[in-house]
Amino acid sequence: MIPKSHPRYESLRQRELLVEGYKAGATALEGLIAFGRGEAFDYLLGEKTPDAAVEAVRAAAAMLLAAENPVVSVNGNTAVLCPEELVKLARAVEGKLEINLFYRTEKRVKAIEGILKGHGAEKVYGVKADAEIEGLDSRRRLVDREGIYSADVVFVALEDGDRTEALIKAGKKVIAVDLNPLSRTAQTASITIVDNVIRAVPLLLAAAEELRAMDREALNRIHRSFDNPSNLRKSLSEIIHGLRSMASH
Amino acid sequence: MIPKSHPRYESLRQRELLVEGYKAGATALEGLIAFGRGEAFDYLLGEKTPDAAVEAVRAAAAMLLAAENPVVSVNGNTAVLCPEELVKLARAVEGKLEINLFYRTEKRVKAIEGILKGHGAEKVYGVKADAEIEGLDSRRRLVDREGIYSADVVFVALEDGDRTEALIKAGKKVIAVDLNPLSRTAQTASITIVDNVIRAVPLLLAAAEELRAMDREALNRIHRSFDNPSNLRKSLSEIIHGLRSMASH
Repeated sequence: MIPKSHPRYESLRQRELLVEGYKAGATALEGLIAFGRGEAFDYLLGEKTPDAAVEAVRAAAAMLLAAENPVVSVNGNTAVLCPEELVKLARAVEGKLEINLFYRTEKRVKAIEGILKGHGAEKVYGVKADAEIEGLDSRRRLVDREGIYSADVVFVALEDGDRTEALIKAGKKVIAVDLNPLSRTAQTASITIVDNVIRAVPLLLAAAEELRAMDREALNRIHRSFDNPSNLRKSLSEIIHGLRSMASH
Repeated sequence: MIPKSHPRYESLRQRELLVEGYKAGATALEGLIAFGRGEAFDYLLGEKTPDAAVEAVRAAAAMLLAAENPVVSVNGNTAVLCPEELVKLARAVEGKLEINLFYRTEKRVKAIEGILKGHGAEKVYGVKADAEIEGLDSRRRLVDREGIYSADVVFVALEDGDRTEALIKAGKKVIAVDLNPLSRTAQTASITIVDNVIRAVPLLLAAAEELRAMDREALNRIHRSFDNPSNLRKSLSEIIHGLRSMASH
């Protein structure tokens, strides 16, 4: 156990969750490397939610609430980093939870399903994976016919660029959480939240609860007025600004 | 096996080395996360050696050649990423190779010793670890009396800030390879090479071979004229410049 007083408590706790997740069979070894990449980008953000992400979160909440069949996609890293919040998010937007893995094995699917159910999920999609997304070579193509396959809006976090592109090509809207505003996922998604998933998902949940009383027309106005390329430029400026100010200390 | 034609061949090959290293018992799970952090910073460098690093490499080679008892410190990540080059570097500067691990276990020490001997090392220090560096809580304090304990110059790569500080406090010069010019290691070391270890070690080896005919006075002039804080500022400028140019594409 890491003492809460440790200056790097939050970061070390997340690292511990990932290592435990690997040992529990939920997280892939490659997921640990991907997590490390995220740590570096989060460091550049000063481990704080950028102002640009707050705007993106509001648009994302509106888009999820206005959707016909929204799906919250879960992978090995997000399942161990913020399972409870993902379960609550799917419930708040009346959406489905679906497991979708790059390094998909039955063992990992079962481990993640167990984690999500342990955090209150009633139904978890993606266990049987009876449909495919076209144009995707990786095992990420395997989806649930009633879940991602028929979704109009998919929420993804810590995603690969190929899948984001394939989902967009399949006519879906994609909301991504990605710490690198220059990544292919960030550049391709309909709405990109440039933030650590561990901060972004609770913010998104809070925004969904705040906006849920609105009618669809008002929700559509909110997310349609959001400009993703311009928001990504703002995030990048915040990163460069942060680097400059770290350099001058 | 990853095909050589893959646009991300070099990066994916390194990732594969780490995953294999973990399975072989040499690399720690936390080493995979640290590697991911490195990937992100290398991405910011455009996966190329910055000009500033070329200057640092020359100074580092001169410092190692001028040393009385230089030691090349090896950890789980460097042992799987560039074992042959580390063995050759120690030989080129007439130095010692020593295993030093944060997550030190007998099993890992043995696995790394096996890798280094398999790449031509005759003697590997740090296996018995019969001395301690003061002011260090982690297992990195355990060193070899004839190795790091009595070294005047220590070469470290992918290092933690606590250890770099403790080595400097123990009166040693530290040459570090670190992709983050703002890290505590980068800021504390005598000479910091801001580059990927997989590119930096071969460059350092080539520089050592080029300078080895020089006398000690000439070598001392080279490394004494090197200004680490100013070199770190140059590396940081190159990173910020790279981010800006990626952003405008």
